Amino acid sequence: MSAAFTLSLDAMGGDYAPEIVLKGAALARERYPTAHFLLFGDTAKIKPLLDADPALAACCTIHHTDQVITGDTKPSQAIRQGRQSSMWKAIEAVKNGEAAGVVSAGNTGALMAMSKIIMRMLPGIDRPAICSLFPTRHGETVMLDLGANSQCDARNLVEFAVMGECFARAILGLERPSVGLLNIGSEDVKGTEELRKASQILRSSHLGMEFKGFIEGDDIPMGTVDVAVTDGFTGNVALKTAEGTAKLFSELLKSAIRSSWLAKFGMIFAKPVFSQVMARTDARRYNGALFVGLNGVVVKSHGGTDAVGFANAIGVAVDMIARDLNRKIGEELASIAAEQSEQEQSEPVEAVAGIAPQ
Amino acid sequence: MSAAFTLSLDAMGGDYAPEIVLKGAALARERYPTAHFLLFGDTAKIKPLLDADPALAACCTIHHTDQVITGDTKPSQAIRQGRQSSMWKAIEAVKNGEAAGVVSAGNTGALMAMSKIIMRMLPGIDRPAICSLFPTRHGETVMLDLGANSQCDARNLVEFAVMGECFARAILGLERPSVGLLNIGSEDVKGTEELRKASQILRSSHLGMEFKGFIEGDDIPMGTVDVAVTDGFTGNVALKTAEGTAKLFSELLKSAIRSSWLAKFGMIFAKPVFSQVMARTDARRYNGALFVGLNGVVVKSHGGTDAVGFANAIGVAVDMIARDLNRKIGEELASIAAEQSEQEQSEPVEAVAGIAPQ
Repeated sequence: MSAAFTLSLDAMGGDYAPEIVLKGAALARERYPTAHFLLFGDTAKIKPLLDADPALAACCTIHHTDQVITGDTKPSQAIRQGRQSSMWKAIEAVKNGEAAGVVSAGNTGALMAMSKIIMRMLPGIDRPAICSLFPTRHGETVMLDLGANSQCDARNLVEFAVMGECFARAILGLERPSVGLLNIGSEDVKGTEELRKASQILRSSHLGMEFKGFIEGDDIPMGTVDVAVTDGFTGNVALKTAEGTAKLFSELLKSAIRSSWLAKFGMIFAKPVFSQVMARTDARRYNGALFVGLNGVVVKSHGGTDAVGFANAIGVAVDMIARDLNRKIGEELASIAAEQSEQEQSEPVEAVAGIAPQ
Repeated sequence: MSAAFTLSLDAMGGDYAPEIVLKGAALARERYPTAHFLLFGDTAKIKPLLDADPALAACCTIHHTDQVITGDTKPSQAIRQGRQSSMWKAIEAVKNGEAAGVVSAGNTGALMAMSKIIMRMLPGIDRPAICSLFPTRHGETVMLDLGANSQCDARNLVEFAVMGECFARAILGLERPSVGLLNIGSEDVKGTEELRKASQILRSSHLGMEFKGFIEGDDIPMGTVDVAVTDGFTGNVALKTAEGTAKLFSELLKSAIRSSWLAKFGMIFAKPVFSQVMARTDARRYNGALFVGLNGVVVKSHGGTDAVGFANAIGVAVDMIARDLNRKIGEELASIAAEQSEQEQSEPVEAVAGIAPQ
């Protein structure tokens, strides 16, 4: 992205705010020298940090806010009582056209609830989803929903599939990404009624999707499909379980190496390739989940990430803006709706199930 | 287990049956020299394999069956039409007292449905669950349900917690195992209504459980609790995602090492500790999931495992029999029900929610 652009940052969101947010912005500034950041938060806390980094200060504007949304605030409470918060104001800056996108490491539920109210959904979308990349054997797989919707019906899952497909096309550069529905068996009889219904709709030709049917948990890291679709409960548990397993594996390796002087000697030679694998599966590298389905770019960073992770989340926002993902999803949905309404005119109603806008 | 005991094996279940079943039994025979195996399946296929291994043949009895339950047979179809199958007959041998437990690598849904009909549930149990161990930072965590019940209510989850606690006490030798409910956030407001209800019941003092509240996906490999409780859909996806992630990690490491002669040289010295970590996280080591809540020992092996994995599944069955797990779960449930009925007499009814037998 070479043109100048502005991002709004929720400077008070996350476990180590505002320090990590500012350090992340400083790293991102090196990668995107034309970026400008609107920092929403407590001036008394932000200003000293900016004073210590004049290069960063030169591309930042502080917008003072008093209120902070904490991790245990309920989404309903956040939208009722949090309208003066750093999070609300940072989202509002996108709605008002002052920023091209927003990044927050704060409370996920509150961020989603506020974004829905302030930005609204894309036409034809019932519920936005949290979408991110997952490292796999072959490269990367798009996965959604990662936690916005604990319970999903067939229509939601179909919408996620369409949005995930657009995301894969835009971010992974694939012409015809393959899509799978996460289930507990690949046979058609497995899983819930909603999954079977969603699978039927996705198989129907009018979507023109490369739909591979049901996939299982191990298919995600194995990279069996380009887009893995699931409800937010399952997706969140699967993502965190995978992160924990990768962490366990690297911890076990490190402690085993420490326990043997022979292994320590061997690692003098083997270390570079290990560092390379660790870097490839580093959770910070995949930090920054996009809220897809909204009328604007909202990226959620892990609350506990470091500056490298937060800078990557900023990178996700930059990518989304540069590739104009929301416009593409909107066009895709509109074209599906149009095809479907044509089909509805030529076919009996019961044969058509889909995702037409309400 | 020093006393002689008999296990029944579904010799036709799994991707590589009967070969792997027999090879697994041969490995298990070395570990448990007093074991006797009843092999249910096609004599024409089993006999040549036994003829080639006289030591194994000496501790096996073939029971001929014609019918095989395939991987894509629906559970309902299996119980209606599969009563002459190797799977049905192998379970029946336990019910009839001819064997102390059964091991099958066949169709999970069919095995569960048949086991429920033939063996019945323990008193007070609404639904059995699939239970297994998961490698963690500190050792091992008990996890259930791993796929028997796609949708669970609060009562089911509470039953799983009680059974998992018994399992941890028996298998891990813990006096007071800690228990967590898998959710997408540790705050009380997170997740589904059923999870919140189950959490409330588990917190109530009459269960006397070391209940740690909600845990998240990464808490499983991190070993935050001794028993991780979840519905069968989420549990199955989490388990398979973790297995896939571990596999991805080891594949990436191996291919990175192959690509560098320096790393290859270093690995001459570092290899023993790597092999040790690989062995600790080897899925075959954790093969063999117990169906808890049934009136008998049923162990499910992965369909695609090898002889080492199948022998480990036999080992799980031997452990369960030796430690008399079902009797212990039964006693625990009866004592909870008794305490609860006392409490019901002294407290207003609405204050008591629990798992009394229907």
